[in-house]
Amino acid sequence: MALSNTKVFEKRVQIRFSQCDPAGIVYFPQYLMLTNWLVEDWFTHELGIDFADYIGKRRLGLPIVKLNCEFFLPSRHGEMLTLSLELTKIGKRSIGLTITGSANGQVRLRSEQVLVTTSLDTGLSIDLPADLKASLENFVDTKNCSLESVK
Amino acid sequence: MALSNTKVFEKRVQIRFSQCDPAGIVYFPQYLMLTNWLVEDWFTHELGIDFADYIGKRRLGLPIVKLNCEFFLPSRHGEMLTLSLELTKIGKRSIGLTITGSANGQVRLRSEQVLVTTSLDTGLSIDLPADLKASLENFVDTKNCSLESVK
Amino acid sequence: MALSNTKVFEKRVQIRFSQCDPAGIVYFPQYLMLTNWLVEDWFTHELGIDFADYIGKRRLGLPIVKLNCEFFLPSRHGEMLTLSLELTKIGKRSIGLTITGSANGQVRLRSEQVLVTTSLDTGLSIDLPADLKASLENFVDTKNCSLESVK
Amino acid sequence: MALSNTKVFEKRVQIRFSQCDPAGIVYFPQYLMLTNWLVEDWFTHELGIDFADYIGKRRLGLPIVKLNCEFFLPSRHGEMLTLSLELTKIGKRSIGLTITGSANGQVRLRSEQVLVTTSLDTGLSIDLPADLKASLENFVDTKNCSLESVK
Repeated sequence: MALSNTKVFEKRVQIRFSQCDPAGIVYFPQYLMLTNWLVEDWFTHELGIDFADYIGKRRLGLPIVKLNCEFFLPSRHGEMLTLSLELTKIGKRSIGLTITGSANGQVRLRSEQVLVTTSLDTGLSIDLPADLKASLENFVDTKNCSLESVK
Repeated sequence: MALSNTKVFEKRVQIRFSQCDPAGIVYFPQYLMLTNWLVEDWFTHELGIDFADYIGKRRLGLPIVKLNCEFFLPSRHGEMLTLSLELTKIGKRSIGLTITGSANGQVRLRSEQVLVTTSLDTGLSIDLPADLKASLENFVDTKNCSLESVK
Repeated sequence: MALSNTKVFEKRVQIRFSQCDPAGIVYFPQYLMLTNWLVEDWFTHELGIDFADYIGKRRLGLPIVKLNCEFFLPSRHGEMLTLSLELTKIGKRSIGLTITGSANGQVRLRSEQVLVTTSLDTGLSIDLPADLKASLENFVDTKNCSLESVK
Repeated sequence: MALSNTKVFEKRVQIRFSQCDPAGIVYFPQYLMLTNWLVEDWFTHELGIDFADYIGKRRLGLPIVKLNCEFFLPSRHGEMLTLSLELTKIGKRSIGLTITGSANGQVRLRSEQVLVTTSLDTGLSIDLPADLKASLENFVDTKNCSLESVK
């Protein structure tokens, strides 16, 4: 299922001292850690699937297999970064996301990610767990509703 | 200048406990930190441009603007990862790299990166510094020689 | 000025996937990053001194010179950790802090830290900046007031 | 068994861009990551106990319970840091270490650490595994030999 105009899950984070490098700007792997935290919060707070349980108790994984990023402008210590997550694809064994980071009215980075559902015990990919699939579909539906309600 | 079959700069690193996540595999932003360390070593040990001086004394930057990665197979704590850097493009104000990580006869990840030369004082892009440009061209030439010598 | 029963600055954070190690628990340097974030928030949100400006614009530093930690019990991915900061000493050129991390009714770690005020330009220690000193004293006073108001 | 004048396990590391903060010096939790890497290398290369197997296959842990550090002087990007590990105590269920970091003829940091041997499955402390105990004792003996051979 390829999706368009998906609902957005959004979060604001303040850039930390520890995330910046000697050039005074966010060190790029730290940006990717932030996108990973966003996915974690999206699961737990929006999809209703506790991410720590998903990994630790259910022994399911969600490794990244494809990552495309563009870094348009640097971000500095202390800035408030708004991270937005859009669901772009619900696959049989994977999901596609686009995550955007903005601050001060500027898009600072955009990251497209493909994450695969796996079993931690076998290390192999598995079909999307039923509850995750349902939550993802609901996330899309909710989006459509809210888009319609805007009209 | 678009390049093909560039010379490879290679380094072996052992995957650390601190680089792995609760799923027992390398946490993907940690992979990107490793690619950044490789660039640092390539500058200092292969190109003959001390990376710490480049940043700290000359106040030049090398931020990433484009990043494409594929993660084919996970890597585990203790594994030896061979990282290989190829120079794919010498631009006016940027360089293109392809970095591959392999272990146990398998390609684990491939990352294409575009890095831009900047001034840390203005934050703006600048032309490749002359010594960097010469070292990059020499890196390519050395490659051609060694390729020819293989015949 | 040695202080006792200082006011507490408190914050709750959720333990992230990226902060845990293959043993499934918080990797100890990540705990210390969390204590550093707490200091950052304490400056910005409680003392009224924007930490990013303090470092980036005013070019003042706050490096750690002494660190004592006890790690009583491990913390796991997904747990809510309450971090509490107490000011234990206002020195001429340093401050003393005790930071405690608790979850699920248990103290997980306690960290005593001595931070020194420096100039980033000279790299040398400097007297506490006047506004920081005033804010720290006010933090203590506020504490006394609030303690009295509890009676 | 309390030890004195233990043999030293030493390693040189170059300070990385990613380990430094906007103040241009090593961010202190990064120092602690370096001490942890030293312990890892000490196990694998000196004690003959593969640290990745110790954790991943044997499911044994080595969490820190006590940490005292002094940070005497900052270290900068590009500097070569010599890390030295001394074994200060072989306990029933713990070991004591002192790790020193030096560069340019100056001691930059000293860290005392107590690490406890645990089972990852129960999360509880266990007696030192027999092979670890033997290797630690041998590390001490080797030291004495080498000290004697110096006479």
